Amino acid sequence: MEGQIEVVKCSLLGSVLSNLLLVLGTSLFCGGVVNLGSDQPYDRTQADVSTGLLILGVLCQSLPLMLRYAVGAGEHSVAAATTVLDLSRACSVVMLLAYVAYLFFQLKTHAQLFEPQEVDDGCEAEEDEQAVIGFASGLFWLAFNTVLIAILSEYVVGTIEPTSKSWGLSVSFISIILLPIVGNAAEHAGAIIFALKNKLDITLGVALGSATQISMFVVPLSVIVAWIAGIQMDLDFKLIETGSLFVSVIVTAFTLQDGSSHYLKGILLLLCYIVIGACFFVTRQPASNNNGAGLSLPTGTLSAQAA
Amino acid sequence: MEGQIEVVKCSLLGSVLSNLLLVLGTSLFCGGVVNLGSDQPYDRTQADVSTGLLILGVLCQSLPLMLRYAVGAGEHSVAAATTVLDLSRACSVVMLLAYVAYLFFQLKTHAQLFEPQEVDDGCEAEEDEQAVIGFASGLFWLAFNTVLIAILSEYVVGTIEPTSKSWGLSVSFISIILLPIVGNAAEHAGAIIFALKNKLDITLGVALGSATQISMFVVPLSVIVAWIAGIQMDLDFKLIETGSLFVSVIVTAFTLQDGSSHYLKGILLLLCYIVIGACFFVTRQPASNNNGAGLSLPTGTLSAQAA
Amino acid sequence: MEGQIEVVKCSLLGSVLSNLLLVLGTSLFCGGVVNLGSDQPYDRTQADVSTGLLILGVLCQSLPLMLRYAVGAGEHSVAAATTVLDLSRACSVVMLLAYVAYLFFQLKTHAQLFEPQEVDDGCEAEEDEQAVIGFASGLFWLAFNTVLIAILSEYVVGTIEPTSKSWGLSVSFISIILLPIVGNAAEHAGAIIFALKNKLDITLGVALGSATQISMFVVPLSVIVAWIAGIQMDLDFKLIETGSLFVSVIVTAFTLQDGSSHYLKGILLLLCYIVIGACFFVTRQPASNNNGAGLSLPTGTLSAQAA
Repeated sequence: MEGQIEVVKCSLLGSVLSNLLLVLGTSLFCGGVVNLGSDQPYDRTQADVSTGLLILGVLCQSLPLMLRYAVGAGEHSVAAATTVLDLSRACSVVMLLAYVAYLFFQLKTHAQLFEPQEVDDGCEAEEDEQAVIGFASGLFWLAFNTVLIAILSEYVVGTIEPTSKSWGLSVSFISIILLPIVGNAAEHAGAIIFALKNKLDITLGVALGSATQISMFVVPLSVIVAWIAGIQMDLDFKLIETGSLFVSVIVTAFTLQDGSSHYLKGILLLLCYIVIGACFFVTRQPASNNNGAGLSLPTGTLSAQAA
Repeated sequence: MEGQIEVVKCSLLGSVLSNLLLVLGTSLFCGGVVNLGSDQPYDRTQADVSTGLLILGVLCQSLPLMLRYAVGAGEHSVAAATTVLDLSRACSVVMLLAYVAYLFFQLKTHAQLFEPQEVDDGCEAEEDEQAVIGFASGLFWLAFNTVLIAILSEYVVGTIEPTSKSWGLSVSFISIILLPIVGNAAEHAGAIIFALKNKLDITLGVALGSATQISMFVVPLSVIVAWIAGIQMDLDFKLIETGSLFVSVIVTAFTLQDGSSHYLKGILLLLCYIVIGACFFVTRQPASNNNGAGLSLPTGTLSAQAA
Repeated sequence: MEGQIEVVKCSLLGSVLSNLLLVLGTSLFCGGVVNLGSDQPYDRTQADVSTGLLILGVLCQSLPLMLRYAVGAGEHSVAAATTVLDLSRACSVVMLLAYVAYLFFQLKTHAQLFEPQEVDDGCEAEEDEQAVIGFASGLFWLAFNTVLIAILSEYVVGTIEPTSKSWGLSVSFISIILLPIVGNAAEHAGAIIFALKNKLDITLGVALGSATQISMFVVPLSVIVAWIAGIQMDLDFKLIETGSLFVSVIVTAFTLQDGSSHYLKGILLLLCYIVIGACFFVTRQPASNNNGAGLSLPTGTLSAQAA
């Protein structure tokens, strides 16, 4: 059970990383190479709003991690875990509030910011689905997607440990890198197609929108649903995962801050993804040992020397 | 004495956080809701300068923390504490230099940047006090404010531990969250009023100016004054505090980088404040145990197992 | 041998810090004071590209550090060191790829971005050397510079420990602060001269270009060359070094994001450098103890108490 929650958390985090770096990176790279001679503009406001939400998400995920380090482990581990759990649930509620505010902002008060500027032919109207299907249906589809992801995760989680052993890959590499690449294939293809047509606003909407949705809606909702079901799921991603997410969000924020793109930006994001993937690839450890890695350090040293 | 210095440090840090996130967040939110239909522009240069100073402040506060982690605790704790103290004092001098340069920049060479653009009626002149009262009076009032804060802190510090016990709240929550909310009420009201009038330059001047002043003037001056008085006050805020400050400055910097505002920016800053407040709320520990929390981990584990 | 690799790593990191903060800071300050009345514009795109590469470099250097903390030390130290080494080599290959893409972007497809805008008189042509000498010669000079640095480092490394003892300074202060100041003197002078002439594009090209070159080309190439020679050199800079680099890159990125400069920006960068220098100055430890400082903490505490 504990291990399954870790896999769910890892695959959600991996999905955010994949959208931010892999999907966005490939799109900007392909769009930059194909439209080499021309400008590749996009609307900064949309990118800024998503970036702000993602940084709030990073804060909500790094506070439980820092709390665990600050409170300490050892004999107080039960009390520490309870504190981290309380904080995670409070953070999840705040993240859901932020996402509701974001939807309200995007669909009601500032909808014009999120419509692609160059809608000059009729066929674009269908593609801009979020402005067409309205608030209620949008919420419904979000919930539906989440449930679907949950069911599929359940299925995948059961088969991931045997796969890990037979392929010789660590569980964290499979759940953080391989699963999200497969899971995001559809968004990936869509984002690249719009980038090739030099419609970066839609590309950003797909890639950043997915990352924001998972980070600020799916992750906290999972924590809340687990809370209702009596399962102890917290927001304490591990050190490397949180650090990777933080740097990824910073890289994306700086990359998207000047309102125009070129292929080198895509390459940078892609290489960041490769580096993070390599980091999880070299840590070939079974899931059970890896769980408490962040704090197993002093205890490990200790028991070794005590013996 | 040790605990009182901790309370002073916590309330100063809390005041910076409160100005950056709570005051600025409420102002941008209220201003954004009231002026929903119109643009809410502000001058980026002022925000950029304050942000730069605040990042320097974060660097000056995180280096002692990292030094403490890198040098290590244990039997070397006296030597480590001396090193951290030396570094803190050097950092404080640098921070004061930076603040003097900032005042010189703001009041002498680039004063026009900090004047609100739309001063078209006479009654605005009094409100823009910093440009009116001049360099010397400004310095005097800064010093006066600092002394006043010091005296009040002295009084509050004596009553904070009984309050903590009777209310069942941790000392860090009271000193980081509750105290600054009360202490910044005047600035808070002023910042909101100007935001409602869509004069965001003055709002930013109040909120960022207060945060910068406390972070780069009051905090280092306290360290220097304590140094002269022979008291060992360093810049080593704890892990969660420093991490929260760092992410807060980053969030503020990204929020203010495009020269126009909307209510979602205010909501994001407010939610960041709520999350940080929740983090300090769940850590219900007496001040004495919390002091060395960052490094009590290996020692605690150790003594438990050694027994 | 181990200590010599540490010195090489420290001096390379110090060179990046020196270019980012000292050279750029002095230039912006001098340029800002001399051209006080006039605007000091520069092209943002060049700064953004360099910043992006530097953040990728920070990611590549912080992942091995985080991996070492997460995997833990103790009896697994050999396995952990191997994992960190594998990751460092993978990161180095990625960094070299990024640098090749950057050169291709700078010299082939977007060369016009990196040419100074105001080339109106003939004498400027020689100064813009990178666009003149072409791709192949550029690569040759890069390689030649690297070899030269390697040889000089070899010589310096042998004399640094006696110097450390006779001067009473720590090895890390000499290699991170003093060496790069001397080593970057030529670039330093050039960058200031162009800043005085208000040609900030060239100043940025020199300072950011050097920092990018060392961070993304010299450092990974050293790791690869050491790999070929059978020497175990990884990218695991220590906690304070990596933290300083991270904050330095963030400060530089925020400083350079609005396309115009003033002297306060230079002062801020300079003060950041002074603070970081002070941090390495107060850690007066011999090189041998300092190497594993990041993780010596639990072991040190342990052996002391076990005894």
